[in-house]
Amino acid sequence: MTYRAPLRDILFSLEDVVAVDGLKTTGAFDDLSSDLTRQVMEEAARFAEEVFGPLDRGGDTQGCTLKDGAVTTPKGFCEAYAKFVEAGWQGISAPAGHGGMGLPRALGGALGEMINGANMALSLAPLLTASAIEALTAHGSDAQKALYLPKLVTGEWSGAMNLTEPQAGSDLGAATTRAEPAGDGVYRLTGQKIFITWGEHDCAANIVHLVLARTPDAPAGSKGLSLFLAPKFLPDADGKPGERNALKAIGLEEKLGIHGSPTCVMEFAGATAWLVGEENRGLAQMFTMMNAARLQVGLQGVGVGARAYSRALDYANERKQGTGPDGEYPAPIVEHADVRRMLTLMKAKIEAARHICFATAVAADAAAFEESEEDRAFARRREQFLTPIAKAWGSDVGLEAASLGLQIHGGAGFIEETGAAQHYRDARIAPIYEGTNGIQAMDLVGRKLSLDDGLAIDDLMEEMEATLEDCATSSNAELPEIAKRLEPALRALEDASDWLLDEDRDDEERMAAAYPYLTLCGEVIGGYFLAVGAVAGQRRLKDKDGDAEFARGKIALARYYAESVLPLAPARAAEVTGAAEPLLDAPEIMLEA
Amino acid sequence: MTYRAPLRDILFSLEDVVAVDGLKTTGAFDDLSSDLTRQVMEEAARFAEEVFGPLDRGGDTQGCTLKDGAVTTPKGFCEAYAKFVEAGWQGISAPAGHGGMGLPRALGGALGEMINGANMALSLAPLLTASAIEALTAHGSDAQKALYLPKLVTGEWSGAMNLTEPQAGSDLGAATTRAEPAGDGVYRLTGQKIFITWGEHDCAANIVHLVLARTPDAPAGSKGLSLFLAPKFLPDADGKPGERNALKAIGLEEKLGIHGSPTCVMEFAGATAWLVGEENRGLAQMFTMMNAARLQVGLQGVGVGARAYSRALDYANERKQGTGPDGEYPAPIVEHADVRRMLTLMKAKIEAARHICFATAVAADAAAFEESEEDRAFARRREQFLTPIAKAWGSDVGLEAASLGLQIHGGAGFIEETGAAQHYRDARIAPIYEGTNGIQAMDLVGRKLSLDDGLAIDDLMEEMEATLEDCATSSNAELPEIAKRLEPALRALEDASDWLLDEDRDDEERMAAAYPYLTLCGEVIGGYFLAVGAVAGQRRLKDKDGDAEFARGKIALARYYAESVLPLAPARAAEVTGAAEPLLDAPEIMLEA
Repeated sequence: MTYRAPLRDILFSLEDVVAVDGLKTTGAFDDLSSDLTRQVMEEAARFAEEVFGPLDRGGDTQGCTLKDGAVTTPKGFCEAYAKFVEAGWQGISAPAGHGGMGLPRALGGALGEMINGANMALSLAPLLTASAIEALTAHGSDAQKALYLPKLVTGEWSGAMNLTEPQAGSDLGAATTRAEPAGDGVYRLTGQKIFITWGEHDCAANIVHLVLARTPDAPAGSKGLSLFLAPKFLPDADGKPGERNALKAIGLEEKLGIHGSPTCVMEFAGATAWLVGEENRGLAQMFTMMNAARLQVGLQGVGVGARAYSRALDYANERKQGTGPDGEYPAPIVEHADVRRMLTLMKAKIEAARHICFATAVAADAAAFEESEEDRAFARRREQFLTPIAKAWGSDVGLEAASLGLQIHGGAGFIEETGAAQHYRDARIAPIYEGTNGIQAMDLVGRKLSLDDGLAIDDLMEEMEATLEDCATSSNAELPEIAKRLEPALRALEDASDWLLDEDRDDEERMAAAYPYLTLCGEVIGGYFLAVGAVAGQRRLKDKDGDAEFARGKIALARYYAESVLPLAPARAAEVTGAAEPLLDAPEIMLEA
Repeated sequence: MTYRAPLRDILFSLEDVVAVDGLKTTGAFDDLSSDLTRQVMEEAARFAEEVFGPLDRGGDTQGCTLKDGAVTTPKGFCEAYAKFVEAGWQGISAPAGHGGMGLPRALGGALGEMINGANMALSLAPLLTASAIEALTAHGSDAQKALYLPKLVTGEWSGAMNLTEPQAGSDLGAATTRAEPAGDGVYRLTGQKIFITWGEHDCAANIVHLVLARTPDAPAGSKGLSLFLAPKFLPDADGKPGERNALKAIGLEEKLGIHGSPTCVMEFAGATAWLVGEENRGLAQMFTMMNAARLQVGLQGVGVGARAYSRALDYANERKQGTGPDGEYPAPIVEHADVRRMLTLMKAKIEAARHICFATAVAADAAAFEESEEDRAFARRREQFLTPIAKAWGSDVGLEAASLGLQIHGGAGFIEETGAAQHYRDARIAPIYEGTNGIQAMDLVGRKLSLDDGLAIDDLMEEMEATLEDCATSSNAELPEIAKRLEPALRALEDASDWLLDEDRDDEERMAAAYPYLTLCGEVIGGYFLAVGAVAGQRRLKDKDGDAEFARGKIALARYYAESVLPLAPARAAEVTGAAEPLLDAPEIMLEA
């Protein structure tokens, strides 16, 4: 099968769950309407299905090749990328002033989910370009913006982030790439960067490299890194790609998955570069723009997970084995209770993760555009808090869904030709890059949770309590059942948050508890959003707007999640509060093997 | 790194946790002693490390090739297999009367864990041969036993199980391969079998195919299948491989992992074959011998998981990133709390799964050799109950460990050369073959749990209560803490078992609850065995036998598991009792996407 976008579910999330139209009150999205959202999303779905989707398998089997510093991407990739540029998708959430469509980030996120579900390897190109756009928008000089942003926003030129070095992965402060001033604001970059996604390829007229490097007298560690811009081709006087810069790909990694995405070893041999933003502020600047990329990686998890889901669903409907509950023989395996359980679990978690990701995007826009500083601060806290959860839990859910999807295929799932195995391989990178999920958990617990004494989780808890009340008092028979499970889950999240926020808490214990806390957040907040969906579904039922069956499905999904996933919350909280000390106190020999 | 056997942990499990020496009282293992166990296991470890381990990566990159019906296995595989035969490992648990070593199955299981950890693809050859030995021992005629068993027990000839057909996977009753009688007790087999592991290869002088097929007047479905023996080469008058039989490999699958294991499409074109056991009893006969193979697949999970663990541990000790808790910079990442958490979780689950698998093996021997019928029946119930848990939970743990192991490597884990990705790919098959884990869960809940009104779980619960009491009353400060977590976990297991055993319970609901129940069993029984290990550790501490540090490690591991995994038990029980009904009642539209 090729890709089928879960358009209806995406629209339900955007409109009924995270209420993207609420952003209209900011004044930044005057044209926004339900019709526009639907129309743009329909086009995005068609694009993902028809242009990116059909190339996914070929990209996996062909991979990329490197010869004389030039990378050749899989057959059809460049044509598809050209169509992406032509349609203007790169700029979906970029301001109209920079040539973008000026639509909310949640719509950009939904596009991201769809193209990544269709073809994760190819969709990494726009993802990295978006990061470059963020970086330049936030920190570039006016001249840099004028020269590079228009080309990046269209996607005619792509972006690449050059951060990692062999000795500097999670610890970027250990990077040693040198930047020597050469007068006139020009620097010469020398060093090697690894794991550079789409660092070199044949689909764009130019590649804009953003590079972390160290000036001669820079302090050691992370406070001595500066951000530089080094294009593959130096723009000439007309802003067109001119002279070839002294940087090139000298190696391609052989990876477990995303074979269609070139992962390059980049060599900078005195490459011409310009400083972006302030000297020695490179890492801090990177962090300010990482939120968007992290959210997109969470959406990669959702996208690949949803792709794995629809593939598994199709298989379960087609494959016949054994006797069904009504005596049918042979029955499609979707009739078997355990297959149905796996499918339902996949779908519920994917929707929960999608809601979290889209809510993060809505918060990001609100943080940028709300009128009052108070509202912006509220939204900024929300965005800060949800981003590591969106990234880590979204990618964890993607991985789990890909694995369950493969399992549903039985023996056929282990055969590469079936396609399920590719999702299992592709999905595995998302919990690693853009900051490993362990780093996300530390960011959540070490920085985000404690901002303003935990105000972000307090705010969120207030909204969750309101939805709990809505469910508990609903006339629908299912919703109070959801409330019964949501209530102890909220208490567990509260307990775990309090434990972590206790100012006497040892930092190491906090870090040991970070991952189970992040999982707890993902599972409970995900369940909350599903409950919001169930409440919306109940409203639809009452409105009798013809969508009753769809609404009943959303209520049933939230109910299943409440009975199967939400009961885990007290266990996660117990792990947060009880497992850190024994972990850290254990003798070294415990790990020997 | 090449393979490093977790010898000390394996011996601890065999001796201190599952007490394999308890089998001496059966009279079947008079020579068994702690010294013998240690000596055999040391040799097995050396063999796995030196002979099978070094070929693992090459096997993955080279894979197998098929030309003119002949399969070529990766470089070195046949030489290594010859050494396996020479050392007599195939017969480790086969009776001395058949040329075996006559050692307990738990030692055979430990060997299985080690060779599979070293090289899962190659170790599938002996695993399938063991299945053929089981089948012929249980159901073969005296003549068949005399002709084939000696060659299979040495491994000079290998075995292959030909069950699956394209339309007959989990539902073997749909198989259509025909067996036409040709006089003199000879049959001609015609049909195609798929997913035949080591169905054709170049490492053994002959391949003994056991084939499920249908005689002309056989009833439809699973009650019309008979088991046949069809050797690749028909034995001549001297019992030597003679004329080539009319069966051959006509395809090799391109798989996600275990590339060194040839997965064949086998064509039977009037192949000469002999009936094994009774006509139309083929499937039932297969089931009587599947227990051993299922246990071995569980041990594949343990083996690959343990391999992933030691690789990740080495990496975490070598790789330096960031600042450690004592201010060291750069510190090995094992110093970071979340990396330590992942390692400890891996190790605790792997040991828990190992204990379950070895305990299953001990029960299998007791079922065969205990003197009284009562004791044999007790052990048989235990073996029956634990087998699906050993297979499914063991392979699930293997998968989880392989994924965590990859994660610990960060970006390097996604690069194939590192090796972590191979374990992630290889481990993925174990939850699928020998009956998917969903099938195992249905077997557990549909057949095993309800035998004798749940006597197996009652027996087990009694032993677990005793260990709970040992922990609760221990003078060691850690053990009562373990008891605090074990107690509610036992209650949860009891509640879930009672719910499933309720005779008014709807069968479909039972099946919908089967998988969470299996997971609950794995997690709680695993925690119980870790607690047994902790009690044994405490004994060692009191005996002051010089192993105090090791013992403290086992207590710490059990404690960590009790704080991080056992709290999940009430959630699993809630899913068992609460999620089945909403799952089955949900409207069809819920799954649409």
